[in-house]
Amino acid sequence: MISIVIIGSGNVAQHLIKSFSKASEIDVIQVFARKPESISHLISLNKITAKYQQIKEADLYLISVSDNAIAEVSSNLPFKNRLVAHTSGSFSIDDLDIKNRKAVFYPLQTFSKNKEVNFKEIPICLEAENESDLNLLQKVASQITNKVFEINSKQRQALHVAAVFVSNFTNHLYEIGSKICEENNVPFEILKPLIKETASKIERLSPSEAQTGPAKRNDTETINTHLKFLSDENQKNIYKILTKSIIDNGKKL
Amino acid sequence: MISIVIIGSGNVAQHLIKSFSKASEIDVIQVFARKPESISHLISLNKITAKYQQIKEADLYLISVSDNAIAEVSSNLPFKNRLVAHTSGSFSIDDLDIKNRKAVFYPLQTFSKNKEVNFKEIPICLEAENESDLNLLQKVASQITNKVFEINSKQRQALHVAAVFVSNFTNHLYEIGSKICEENNVPFEILKPLIKETASKIERLSPSEAQTGPAKRNDTETINTHLKFLSDENQKNIYKILTKSIIDNGKKL
Repeated sequence: MISIVIIGSGNVAQHLIKSFSKASEIDVIQVFARKPESISHLISLNKITAKYQQIKEADLYLISVSDNAIAEVSSNLPFKNRLVAHTSGSFSIDDLDIKNRKAVFYPLQTFSKNKEVNFKEIPICLEAENESDLNLLQKVASQITNKVFEINSKQRQALHVAAVFVSNFTNHLYEIGSKICEENNVPFEILKPLIKETASKIERLSPSEAQTGPAKRNDTETINTHLKFLSDENQKNIYKILTKSIIDNGKKL
Repeated sequence: MISIVIIGSGNVAQHLIKSFSKASEIDVIQVFARKPESISHLISLNKITAKYQQIKEADLYLISVSDNAIAEVSSNLPFKNRLVAHTSGSFSIDDLDIKNRKAVFYPLQTFSKNKEVNFKEIPICLEAENESDLNLLQKVASQITNKVFEINSKQRQALHVAAVFVSNFTNHLYEIGSKICEENNVPFEILKPLIKETASKIERLSPSEAQTGPAKRNDTETINTHLKFLSDENQKNIYKILTKSIIDNGKKL
């Protein structure tokens, strides 16, 4: 049995607590949370503490707080030489306090409070300073997911930037699509199967093979019709830049 | 039984032929194709013609050719007063030849030759000049999909522009993400569950509710780290513009 203390009570912390509670080889012995009531629905109150001095001894400490608080939390821990991992995509392993054995345990997913996720499908990216710590992290990760990767800080940085493009920016394009529909009295509903299919296509095709549309065909007539149709300067601008990028990309192939 | 002649042999035409072949109330009596061999795997050769004069009488003619050929094909048809619909998202109903009853039968989906689609989930947008033609189109559409919408040409234009944002542009963001991974020796595979989840999130949340990431949080430190990380000027530019758009959007709420 591997004992874990989770530090934090946000989206990621909550999803981790839920998943670990179903794992046979993991025991979440304690959660550190400034506001115990925020997670009392997930773990019994006697396992929640808001005081650093009360943190118990465990095989692994997972710091799951906002990026700008990780360094401070890691230096506040009142012990040394233990295994301490953060769960962030953009925070470097080097910026954890040196007094403990540093590591990263990064589940790459977009977590929302109101949406359940299937953790088995979520890749977890691991980094550790030595082999035995890495082994322990692999045991922990494989208890909740089938997808475990060893990823160094430079690679994790790349993944995080790429994730912003394929997830945050993509969702913003959904929002623009939804606005265009709204302004023209068309149900956004009609576009949802297309959105789903666009995402599922790349399971089998590379994004480059899957590319379709007027920019890909260099269909200037349709492109100009669309630009004339758009009245919002920001939307027009985004349309132009992404269209140019697709066209330039085609030229390089 | 409703008889249909399909004019064209591209992606959309082929997917339509396949779906109609499973529909009990539809009979595709003929396909007009310049190169009969391109669709001989889908329909028997004696039902394929390359000559306008040989086109048979039918309840409905579906013109499924590239946008810039629709007008010419519709004026080449050697008959009048019959029901002729095109399948394009961006072509206006008005630009069909006036000698026949004009209509639109637009399946809103991204079709690739190498990827099967489940037509039942694909919305079909209909437009016709009169009620009885619209009724016939509704009967035809409901044979292959559960999602039938009456959409006028202005609305269809909006849908088509919105579709470019949520599908073509989104796929291009996938491609940028894939390139960033490749350049940093990270398997793009790791991002696929995130892509899937981002698309599936909006089944339950509005895109605005689903938005996450550094731009949404106005986390300038992470944004600057990402901009420093990106070396490609085009990627940097897209990152800046979409980040600004998300931030400005947040201010309006």
